[in-house]
Amino acid sequence: MTSDNRLRSFGLVVNPVDPATVVPPSGDITASGGHGDAVRGMNAGSPAFDPAAIIPELDPEQVRLLGEVGDHWTRTVRRPPVWQQALPVRTDLVPVDVRADAKLTNGGFARGDEPGRVLATADVLQPETAMARRVYATRRLLLGAPLRSAAVAQERMRKLVGLAVLSSDALSSVAYGPEAMITVLALAGAGALGYAIPISAGIVVLMLAVGLSYRQTVRAYPGGGGSYIVASDNLGELPGLLAAAGLMIDYVLTVSVSVAAGVAAVTSAVPSLRGATVPLGLAVIAILLVGNLRGVRKAGAAFAWPTYAFIAAIALVVGVGMIGVAGRGFTTVRPPRLGVTEGLGLLLVLRAFASGSTAMTGIEAISNAIPAFKPVEWRNARTTLSWMIGLLITMFAGIVALIHFDGIAPRAGETVLSELAHSTLGGGALYAYVQAATALVLLLAANTAFNDFPRLLYFMARDRRAPIVFLRMGDRLAFYNGIVALAVVSGFAFAVLGGNTESLIPLYAVGVFLAFTLSQAGMVMHWWRRRDPHWRKSIAFNGVGCALSAIVLAISAVTKFTEGAWAVLVAVPLLVILFKRIHGYYEMVHSAVALRPFDLAAGEPSSQRRLGPRLDAALKGIQAPVEESPEEVHNLAVVPIVGLNLASMRALAYAASLGQPVLAVHISPNESEAARFEAYWHAWGDHLPLEVVVSPYRAIVGPLARYLEELHGQRPDVTLTVIVPELVPRRTWQRLLQGGTAGRLRRSLRHQSRTIVTTAPFLLP
Amino acid sequence: MTSDNRLRSFGLVVNPVDPATVVPPSGDITASGGHGDAVRGMNAGSPAFDPAAIIPELDPEQVRLLGEVGDHWTRTVRRPPVWQQALPVRTDLVPVDVRADAKLTNGGFARGDEPGRVLATADVLQPETAMARRVYATRRLLLGAPLRSAAVAQERMRKLVGLAVLSSDALSSVAYGPEAMITVLALAGAGALGYAIPISAGIVVLMLAVGLSYRQTVRAYPGGGGSYIVASDNLGELPGLLAAAGLMIDYVLTVSVSVAAGVAAVTSAVPSLRGATVPLGLAVIAILLVGNLRGVRKAGAAFAWPTYAFIAAIALVVGVGMIGVAGRGFTTVRPPRLGVTEGLGLLLVLRAFASGSTAMTGIEAISNAIPAFKPVEWRNARTTLSWMIGLLITMFAGIVALIHFDGIAPRAGETVLSELAHSTLGGGALYAYVQAATALVLLLAANTAFNDFPRLLYFMARDRRAPIVFLRMGDRLAFYNGIVALAVVSGFAFAVLGGNTESLIPLYAVGVFLAFTLSQAGMVMHWWRRRDPHWRKSIAFNGVGCALSAIVLAISAVTKFTEGAWAVLVAVPLLVILFKRIHGYYEMVHSAVALRPFDLAAGEPSSQRRLGPRLDAALKGIQAPVEESPEEVHNLAVVPIVGLNLASMRALAYAASLGQPVLAVHISPNESEAARFEAYWHAWGDHLPLEVVVSPYRAIVGPLARYLEELHGQRPDVTLTVIVPELVPRRTWQRLLQGGTAGRLRRSLRHQSRTIVTTAPFLLP
Repeated sequence: MTSDNRLRSFGLVVNPVDPATVVPPSGDITASGGHGDAVRGMNAGSPAFDPAAIIPELDPEQVRLLGEVGDHWTRTVRRPPVWQQALPVRTDLVPVDVRADAKLTNGGFARGDEPGRVLATADVLQPETAMARRVYATRRLLLGAPLRSAAVAQERMRKLVGLAVLSSDALSSVAYGPEAMITVLALAGAGALGYAIPISAGIVVLMLAVGLSYRQTVRAYPGGGGSYIVASDNLGELPGLLAAAGLMIDYVLTVSVSVAAGVAAVTSAVPSLRGATVPLGLAVIAILLVGNLRGVRKAGAAFAWPTYAFIAAIALVVGVGMIGVAGRGFTTVRPPRLGVTEGLGLLLVLRAFASGSTAMTGIEAISNAIPAFKPVEWRNARTTLSWMIGLLITMFAGIVALIHFDGIAPRAGETVLSELAHSTLGGGALYAYVQAATALVLLLAANTAFNDFPRLLYFMARDRRAPIVFLRMGDRLAFYNGIVALAVVSGFAFAVLGGNTESLIPLYAVGVFLAFTLSQAGMVMHWWRRRDPHWRKSIAFNGVGCALSAIVLAISAVTKFTEGAWAVLVAVPLLVILFKRIHGYYEMVHSAVALRPFDLAAGEPSSQRRLGPRLDAALKGIQAPVEESPEEVHNLAVVPIVGLNLASMRALAYAASLGQPVLAVHISPNESEAARFEAYWHAWGDHLPLEVVVSPYRAIVGPLARYLEELHGQRPDVTLTVIVPELVPRRTWQRLLQGGTAGRLRRSLRHQSRTIVTTAPFLLP
Repeated sequence: MTSDNRLRSFGLVVNPVDPATVVPPSGDITASGGHGDAVRGMNAGSPAFDPAAIIPELDPEQVRLLGEVGDHWTRTVRRPPVWQQALPVRTDLVPVDVRADAKLTNGGFARGDEPGRVLATADVLQPETAMARRVYATRRLLLGAPLRSAAVAQERMRKLVGLAVLSSDALSSVAYGPEAMITVLALAGAGALGYAIPISAGIVVLMLAVGLSYRQTVRAYPGGGGSYIVASDNLGELPGLLAAAGLMIDYVLTVSVSVAAGVAAVTSAVPSLRGATVPLGLAVIAILLVGNLRGVRKAGAAFAWPTYAFIAAIALVVGVGMIGVAGRGFTTVRPPRLGVTEGLGLLLVLRAFASGSTAMTGIEAISNAIPAFKPVEWRNARTTLSWMIGLLITMFAGIVALIHFDGIAPRAGETVLSELAHSTLGGGALYAYVQAATALVLLLAANTAFNDFPRLLYFMARDRRAPIVFLRMGDRLAFYNGIVALAVVSGFAFAVLGGNTESLIPLYAVGVFLAFTLSQAGMVMHWWRRRDPHWRKSIAFNGVGCALSAIVLAISAVTKFTEGAWAVLVAVPLLVILFKRIHGYYEMVHSAVALRPFDLAAGEPSSQRRLGPRLDAALKGIQAPVEESPEEVHNLAVVPIVGLNLASMRALAYAASLGQPVLAVHISPNESEAARFEAYWHAWGDHLPLEVVVSPYRAIVGPLARYLEELHGQRPDVTLTVIVPELVPRRTWQRLLQGGTAGRLRRSLRHQSRTIVTTAPFLLP
């Protein structure tokens, strides 16, 4: 979908467009591709987004090793274990004797389903402080009450909602797809416009092929069958990540361009607002953000009706138009004479085909969001997909036919859809309705991105190829972080470009058709491997779809290269590298924290997969089985003390209460202050060993960290517990008045091995 | 000092100034006051800035209570104290047997002067990581090697350096003071110019009075005798804070205006740089910043010579001029005829007097910086002050006399100093030298602010009326934080105003003369109380100075009120309120952490000063004497666990090793995940009590914090040690890939009473 096409589709026509811009000789409309493939799914996973996906499951070997660690713990414990004493509190929070003490409430916690579980009710989400309460109340006002994980089924979409939410992108593209096609053909003169019919037939075949293909994908990947999943599953990691990168770029561009179109419509109606383009656009993105954070159901209800209004508008235009055509006996009006700037050749036809194919963008959104449908998810998704394809083909074919019969040619300053509406409905209220509905649906194409982008990130994060924060479902069961990420990135892109998104257009096509091609290719591989019944027919459909998508991709990449497509060709590999590095990090973490057989400590090679000699060596250090049992932990508590007061006395008493050896350390800027401190220490009674570090360069954190390191160097098996007394002011501004040494010390000791930092807070009134 | 005066003093004349702007009928030159009083000192303190000022001293009562706490500790301990076992490490870091193990280095630490002390050498300042090392190396390159606290004496200023560094502001003001005076007089016509002589005589008397007064202040306050200290000491807190607020505003304005003048000189010489005014100004501020961070001695060496160049230039102009005057037998040239716009009355004379007094701004800088002189500090400071006053009076009187004899009248587009230089030296190299030296000294007036502002903040922080970070002396013994604060604030003011500081001019005078008046009044009170020998003479000097300063203050505040002086009259009280709130906070902290007699727990009123019923009640809660001895601390360790892996196993083993009761808590988004986790726990062997909190709204931090609060509610006497396992990645970008839950939990538990947060880091390879 192209921005200028979107803009022109409003008919409101913001900036009269020079035909030379609309149809450059290089035929770049062809390359101004569509929205990318958002089809994906779960590899035979359950058809639901799982809030527990963030907590890793253990494989059987890990569970076995867990038992080994437990046995080791039992074996090594010599003294009677303190931790098996009765706890001083009731951990299930239920009062021992309900009659006895009415004040002993369970404060928002209820009895859990099983013993040893408590259930946090919505009450515990209420923050404590007044400020946080106001923030929370605002959040509730904007987003609605929090939803329980169990409500995920009720938050699913009905088919009619799903059709509207997930097809606004696809259906809105008939507003500019046919126009893009005939604009290319018009370069070869009015006579060439007749080729629109066979080319459109080709596009309809493509739509049908792709639609049928996605029907099959939905069935094959009931957990979600987007390009990322289909390509990963059938072609490998790299194609999957390429598809994901293409899609992500597309989603961000969809939002920016779609919002730009919407804002341009507003500012062309109210020109005095033109100076406020960026704030208006950001406001629209904020509305989409909040609406989508409210959850699938609420967002669906809010954002569904424009799609139906648009469908009705197209039905009106095509219906009234066709009645007129039938009334005159299906005679064709001759189009106006057009200047010929190019000969009619195969390339021109291909470019017209590719341009017309932009009407297919957004077609993939449903296959993505299968788990968002009500059960049976895949069946509902497939039915919705069929409706969408049917509507898309009908609307596309109807518009192309009407263009042909009415002899419409592309004109500067007015969209083809507006021309059609004028010629069929005149210029009155119905015309205005068609234009308004078109504007609104183009604007809401962004909503499809807000639905699909977070789901793509969810699937990637589940595979540990995106940050795991994208697995979190917010308190409205929406993918909070993904939605916010899309709003931030697209808002940033919009603001940086000042709402002038024309420079984004050349970037559009490549990512989309890359994902699309890879998805189709993945399905071909899928059928080839599975050899289900009718696999030859399935391969044929997907093969044709793949080939045609690949053609559009190639034409786009080549003809738009210098205009910006190169940026996508640079960005896609960079994103892929980023995803791979993220995956590498999580793999490393997984290996590092995995339990290992005990003989590893003796220098045996790991039984698990190796990560390269350097990392393996590093892991071996971590893996030494000491510290896996309490008896193997040797402690030394160190208390850094600045001055002697109630806060430091508390910290010293706390340190001594842990029943471990304790050392107090004082950092002094000079010898005289050191002597003064030692005198205080003596006055207290020399209860604990004290070492004074004289720091003549006045640094505190650096020498202290180095001193602890030296202590650690003497006994690498000892765990240092550094107990840092810290004054905690009640208000944020007061924190600036504290030196901040505690925080800097904590950060500085963060990377020191076997050093545990304990903050002993002293709350100020 | 006024910006347009500064600008015009360059003679380069950036923007030809309309005379109506320079001498508005309201006589605002009068109000464009000077730089404020920066005189201060230590109340009979030692004449040195003390790096140990940041560590509070205890009063004898606190030391006694310390002993009481120690006795209590001895009494309450029942079991054999573990903390008196031999420590597993040598805390003095010196190898037990030097021959035995060569690897046992002491890593940058040396033996201290006394047993129980180690000395951190400069080696320990070297950071560990490669990145931090590069930062450190850059810092060393810019600032030089770190200086030991003991080097503070070597870092003092010689008199010749002190004169240059601390008087550039004062001496540079003769470049515009005389001009400001005759510009006011010229309003009453050429005949009125003759009044310059008696008015100047009055100003010289004022200079002499103030100079003698400061000589006395320097002796009376050898630790530093700025307006803040003198006013606080003799008049009370409020006058002291008013003086400090006035001075702070002045310092920031001095830097902004002085840098604007310097940059204007550059851009008028190279007009193509005019677009880069803000970057150039920020670059100048950065140079002053780095120069001053290098420490007093290095900064003095770098920034001293322009002052001497300027003194030489004025000597040249006045000397050559006077030889000419003498050559023609001291005849007076008639000044050109001037239009009369105002009658010659008392008000005009007063305004002329006030305007001429701007030549006195900066006079106070030396009394401020007494501890920065070599010993005997006050004597050297006093000698330097005498030199400065002598130079100031000589230069001022010489210029006024030459103006009189040569019949110079103020002209648009050229400064009076430039006119003088032209008439005495012609237009050649010597003229250019005078202009260049003037430009440079005006620019370096900012350097005086960089010397005094951090010292003012030091004195205020020592009294706990400014954040204590301003007590820190950086590794070059400069007041790092104060220097950076001045650079940031003045750079911000400069950038916000786009280097156009004319709007700041009306703000200038009020703060300065406020501080000046209060300082003089304080000295009057000082003499009145002390009745030293010659106290009547001293009171007379200071009383005259005070009265004249007050006149300038009143004229400035009234005539410039609507032009911006109101902003200062608003800002000063706001700053005073801020200082008082800061002081209130530190007072509160002081009371909160002070040790108290044990009977307080029984509800007895505090023997210390009361802070109001609300705060006293809050303090009583803190003061309960439990937790002051290790036996009185009741512990419960709580380990929040997300998944079972090596990191959480380590955290559990560590928790159990502390020998306290341990509870593990798992937060689960739903019941099925809860069951899965319980099965893992069982596979491990159920070594520790486990409670699963099912959080159906998927929040983690909130429910966990509330759960701990509920546990705490059951046993408020129990200290909860929350041991949070945290994966620590090696690189910063990787931290984004962790959920950040540990950090959020830490922040959320920060304000929970008796809850100690321990981060158990698991270092990733």
